[in-house]
Amino acid sequence: MPESQLPPVKGVRLASVPARIKDWQRDDLLLVEIAEGASVSATFTQNTFCAAPVVVAREHIHSGEIRALLVNAGNANAATGARGLSDTRACCEAVAQVMQIRSEQVLPFSTGVIGEHLPLQRLLDGIPKAARQLSDDGWDQAAKAIMTTDTRAKTASRTLQIAGEEITIVGIAKGSGMIQPNMATMLAYVATDATVAQPLLNAMVKEAVSASFNRVSVDGDTSTNDACVLIATGTADCEIKSRSDQGYAELMAAITQLHIELAQAVVKDGEGATKFVTVQVEGALSSEEALRVAFEVGESPLVKTALYASDPNWGRLVMAIGNAIPENLDTEKVDIYLDRVKVVEAGGRAADYREEQGEQVFTQPEFTIRIALGRGDCCEHIWTCDFSHEYVTINAEYRT
Amino acid sequence: MPESQLPPVKGVRLASVPARIKDWQRDDLLLVEIAEGASVSATFTQNTFCAAPVVVAREHIHSGEIRALLVNAGNANAATGARGLSDTRACCEAVAQVMQIRSEQVLPFSTGVIGEHLPLQRLLDGIPKAARQLSDDGWDQAAKAIMTTDTRAKTASRTLQIAGEEITIVGIAKGSGMIQPNMATMLAYVATDATVAQPLLNAMVKEAVSASFNRVSVDGDTSTNDACVLIATGTADCEIKSRSDQGYAELMAAITQLHIELAQAVVKDGEGATKFVTVQVEGALSSEEALRVAFEVGESPLVKTALYASDPNWGRLVMAIGNAIPENLDTEKVDIYLDRVKVVEAGGRAADYREEQGEQVFTQPEFTIRIALGRGDCCEHIWTCDFSHEYVTINAEYRT
Repeated sequence: MPESQLPPVKGVRLASVPARIKDWQRDDLLLVEIAEGASVSATFTQNTFCAAPVVVAREHIHSGEIRALLVNAGNANAATGARGLSDTRACCEAVAQVMQIRSEQVLPFSTGVIGEHLPLQRLLDGIPKAARQLSDDGWDQAAKAIMTTDTRAKTASRTLQIAGEEITIVGIAKGSGMIQPNMATMLAYVATDATVAQPLLNAMVKEAVSASFNRVSVDGDTSTNDACVLIATGTADCEIKSRSDQGYAELMAAITQLHIELAQAVVKDGEGATKFVTVQVEGALSSEEALRVAFEVGESPLVKTALYASDPNWGRLVMAIGNAIPENLDTEKVDIYLDRVKVVEAGGRAADYREEQGEQVFTQPEFTIRIALGRGDCCEHIWTCDFSHEYVTINAEYRT
Repeated sequence: MPESQLPPVKGVRLASVPARIKDWQRDDLLLVEIAEGASVSATFTQNTFCAAPVVVAREHIHSGEIRALLVNAGNANAATGARGLSDTRACCEAVAQVMQIRSEQVLPFSTGVIGEHLPLQRLLDGIPKAARQLSDDGWDQAAKAIMTTDTRAKTASRTLQIAGEEITIVGIAKGSGMIQPNMATMLAYVATDATVAQPLLNAMVKEAVSASFNRVSVDGDTSTNDACVLIATGTADCEIKSRSDQGYAELMAAITQLHIELAQAVVKDGEGATKFVTVQVEGALSSEEALRVAFEVGESPLVKTALYASDPNWGRLVMAIGNAIPENLDTEKVDIYLDRVKVVEAGGRAADYREEQGEQVFTQPEFTIRIALGRGDCCEHIWTCDFSHEYVTINAEYRT
């Protein structure tokens, strides 16, 4: 397979270097320089036991113009107390010095093992080396530098025309599935050269993440370090200040699609995953209810092991639906389809359904479980994967 | 190992027969006769996709004096629509005829595969056979007849003195762990010969279940058929009408302990389980918060795979805690102990902690994870087990 070739985004330069964060030979430190005047927005993990870099990044993002990102793989700097915070601040300070900016203009990110202190000196040694190598075609190398247990780099790009101007969007992500955040992090960085006003960009990153990374199946195990950053460098001649501005809808759609592509890549690369499954719920009373049903189905270990076994065990699907809606569900209005095969009709086995039909769908590498609740007009979907022997092996043997 | 010998409870007679609910040679139909004048209370699954027998049992328990229980293993009669309901009602009617009671006085229960219709005629044939064999020493046989994937029968008994009268409590349960309710049910039946007023008994079963079966780790997968029944036959000379009556405290304590013993047996027999772990949370703002933390830890697949691997990966514990308390947790007040070994102090690795100490605890078949949140006075605990290759095998290969 040829290497992907991500185009540059004017206003963003990147450099990846080997800093030996762990005992390995590979790039593990990424420095990103963002041009003056760019807008930068981010979302972070909801986990209160969040890592030191998340604490510091949350402070810095509110303090004004962000000019640099620093990412290390191999160590999460989570559950590391006061020393973890001071290590992160020292890294930001080192970036600030070498790039002649303020340390509040640096967003730090870490991914790796929880509970161990950063090898601070190695990071401090790596930062000036990285600063000397900054280049606007460093995206592909960057996607590799932030990997942990990922088996492949996750990249995506789009171009679109807004008022005759060509706009570029580039994104990279890491995470071998939120399904096994044992390396404690899903990270994503997306940049465009469009000019987007900061308040609007803040809303856009939330919407894009809600439609993408927040719809992949997790174990209920939100990591301590998750973060997603959206950068609009403003180097292209296209200024978007509000949702009614020309090009907003196209840009938002392209950014969302790119986020979805990255999120799906994370699920597909889930450790041990052998199936990529869309769970689509329709006829719900609210979007929230539809998502609750979709996640209950998509996160159920019993459903996930059935996916792994290519066993269309629809009894586990109805069980999960019944758990998601604890009150007033009229089960006789519930239909379930596996791709186009109707397996459940009016809450029971569909009259024409034959087991072989379900098996045929479930043996495919990708398919859709569609649940029609018959109680409202709202629909939602999430993406999940199966739960395999390999998952247990990887998560039981991690650290050894 | 010698067979357990459960004592009779005067006022309860049981009979188990082979009814070939599935293609197997074993008892799979249990009939229980309850003497006139007994109080009977029950709790049922919260799953709205509940099975036909749960719907009917809920109706019947409110309609007056319960005189019989009918339990079949091998088929859950869940997601079976109108025919499922009429099958269940036909079984109750058959019990009523043979025992000369009203069908509303029969509580039906089923456990097994979801989505297949009961082999009704086989149940109808089995009921009169069972009725002819009713005996007050049928408890041990009953515990076996209700098993599905259980590897051993779950039984418990207690005797105590109340005002000079000897009171007996006997209980049986099935479920190879709520952790894999693939057979779709945890069932428990407990009987005492004490005389307990119906309203008080209703409260007692709720309290006992709350302290026992509701504290074992589940996958989030509440089954469609779960039920727990508490019977007080009133044949012993000891009448308890209110909490202030003599003997209430002793009886409640004994009943609760017996429920806990059965619930722990269910966890220990969890398919694939190799460890039995108590998760104890203290210093919480509320009982609810303590339970939320305990379940988040005890149900996390990442924690469960670490238990399986005997890997004291405390980073996964802090991650789960941070997920359970999304706001205002002062992580620097959190301590974690593995049995007596302090592994986390003030939110980070305890200064004196050595990895070998944690490994020593985690290699034991039973141990306690104790989490001190340092923010309040409430404490709670749950029981969980590990997540093994065998779990995936069993749940991936079930039905094949």
